[in-house]
Amino acid sequence: MIVEKEIYKYKKRIDEAINKYLREGENHTLLDAMRYLPLSGGKRLRPCIALASTKACGGKQQTAMPFAVSLEIIHSFTLIHDDIMDDDVLRRGIPTTHMKYDIPTAINAGDALMARAFEIISEMKIDDITLRRIVHETAKMIRMIGEGQQMDMEFEKRYPDEDEYIKMVEKKTALMFKTAAWGGAVIGGADRKIEKAMAEYGRLMGIGFQIWDDYLSLKGDEKTFGKEIGNDLKRGKKTLIVIHALRNANNKNVIMNVLGNKKALKSEIIKAINEIENCDSLRYASNIASKYCSQAKKNLEVLRPSKEKDFLISLVDYMITRVK
Amino acid sequence: MIVEKEIYKYKKRIDEAINKYLREGENHTLLDAMRYLPLSGGKRLRPCIALASTKACGGKQQTAMPFAVSLEIIHSFTLIHDDIMDDDVLRRGIPTTHMKYDIPTAINAGDALMARAFEIISEMKIDDITLRRIVHETAKMIRMIGEGQQMDMEFEKRYPDEDEYIKMVEKKTALMFKTAAWGGAVIGGADRKIEKAMAEYGRLMGIGFQIWDDYLSLKGDEKTFGKEIGNDLKRGKKTLIVIHALRNANNKNVIMNVLGNKKALKSEIIKAINEIENCDSLRYASNIASKYCSQAKKNLEVLRPSKEKDFLISLVDYMITRVK
Repeated sequence: MIVEKEIYKYKKRIDEAINKYLREGENHTLLDAMRYLPLSGGKRLRPCIALASTKACGGKQQTAMPFAVSLEIIHSFTLIHDDIMDDDVLRRGIPTTHMKYDIPTAINAGDALMARAFEIISEMKIDDITLRRIVHETAKMIRMIGEGQQMDMEFEKRYPDEDEYIKMVEKKTALMFKTAAWGGAVIGGADRKIEKAMAEYGRLMGIGFQIWDDYLSLKGDEKTFGKEIGNDLKRGKKTLIVIHALRNANNKNVIMNVLGNKKALKSEIIKAINEIENCDSLRYASNIASKYCSQAKKNLEVLRPSKEKDFLISLVDYMITRVK
Repeated sequence: MIVEKEIYKYKKRIDEAINKYLREGENHTLLDAMRYLPLSGGKRLRPCIALASTKACGGKQQTAMPFAVSLEIIHSFTLIHDDIMDDDVLRRGIPTTHMKYDIPTAINAGDALMARAFEIISEMKIDDITLRRIVHETAKMIRMIGEGQQMDMEFEKRYPDEDEYIKMVEKKTALMFKTAAWGGAVIGGADRKIEKAMAEYGRLMGIGFQIWDDYLSLKGDEKTFGKEIGNDLKRGKKTLIVIHALRNANNKNVIMNVLGNKKALKSEIIKAINEIENCDSLRYASNIASKYCSQAKKNLEVLRPSKEKDFLISLVDYMITRVK
């Protein structure tokens, strides 16, 4: 797929930049723990979006690179802390930071990464007014991601409806895509109308991305996807798919049996997934993801034609066709 | 003591501002957990220093208030996360945030507080160039506090020398005093020479503050001080006092018996403290704290006479005479 080649080209430059920006620090253990997850791979979709957005709005990608790197660093910090909160042992096929080091070091590394992100942003070669806006929206984003994470944890213990689920996803996942596209546009010198359209592009795509992620965590290939299939069910995650299935399944018990049951057997998980599939919940969710994504694409109409505009369009399609 | 009355006057205004600035948020549990520690008391020394420094340099305290509040919020976030890392159950005489809520919520609340601090700073009514400098130094400070915390945890498992101990304290504790005094000066419109002197003032005072804190944790009154006497010994903290005692005590075993021994008896702790006192380690450390503090005061000579200058001088004396 061509878009994957393009993503890979971005990824190579982003990886180099992350490596360069994560060298500050006098404590070896802390610095190692800070570098461990951000340099362990990852698709780099958020920085991709930021860089392409800057260029598509008429700016230079080089100028936006520190912002793009900061987003990936912030993404990493949230993953490190989430993995502690969720007691996850694997991430990207390798031990999570708190398993590789220990919980105190992982908490500390996450904190230091968030701080480092603001340090990097504050050194950007952009005008001071733009800098203030970027700092403000980035900080607000992180606080709201925390709200999303809190909702996500609360939902493990109760049954949210579809609107609540979407609201959680907007905060926990989509807001970072939104800030990436918005910030890229701001750094690229976009006018307010285009800034707004790019923010919407990111937000809508981010929701689509997460719904597709939920899909993959039930129907993906374990090795390719890199996470245990059905783990979301065992953790009691009420995704859009699960919410639909619990409303429509003939045999709800098969699903309820594994939902939030950390000791559920592989065979029970497979039965539950079959039941979910039988009542069309997977197709239902993937249709909704598609709708969000086509809405996302419409927002790109404000952009003048460019290679980066085309890339931003194809990124949306990638979000809901990717296998990892 | 007059300085305590003055601190109290500052504290009242700072408390109100913290209360006002910590109202943003749509998730009740998260917002409650974010407010729990910052609104549970505390001396507010760091915001005090920032506000007094601004006024002493010719600025308005009102302008510096969001920065002062942000420092206290950052201080709170570090305490919340440190208490998780150190497995502490009490802080300021009440349950720590992770005991009151749970570890995931406390991690999340700490993260959201750090983000909120940058949000508040980015809304300050100061020129954009000054804002950039404040963001940069604040972010760098947080990353380096993390390094200090990492060193502190490492020192529980090995024997640092005095220089290493001072380096740790500089990062973990003194840097925030330094940034408070420096940032206050910058917001107050000080020239570079005065900025630098104020930074030094804060740094030196901060070291004195921590050494005195170590003193209180051995010889303070448990109720007034608010922390368990001898807890530092049980945790294996190699403070300046302990480092000196292990070099000079006649009966080192009495100290080694309790150092890092979480099950040490109260009677054993008292014996160890007596041994430490007998070899003059307490006086040794308090002399060093005094030296740092008089160096701190000298840096204030660059300031023109003012009520706030006098307050900043008396704050230094307070640091090493306070009983809590």
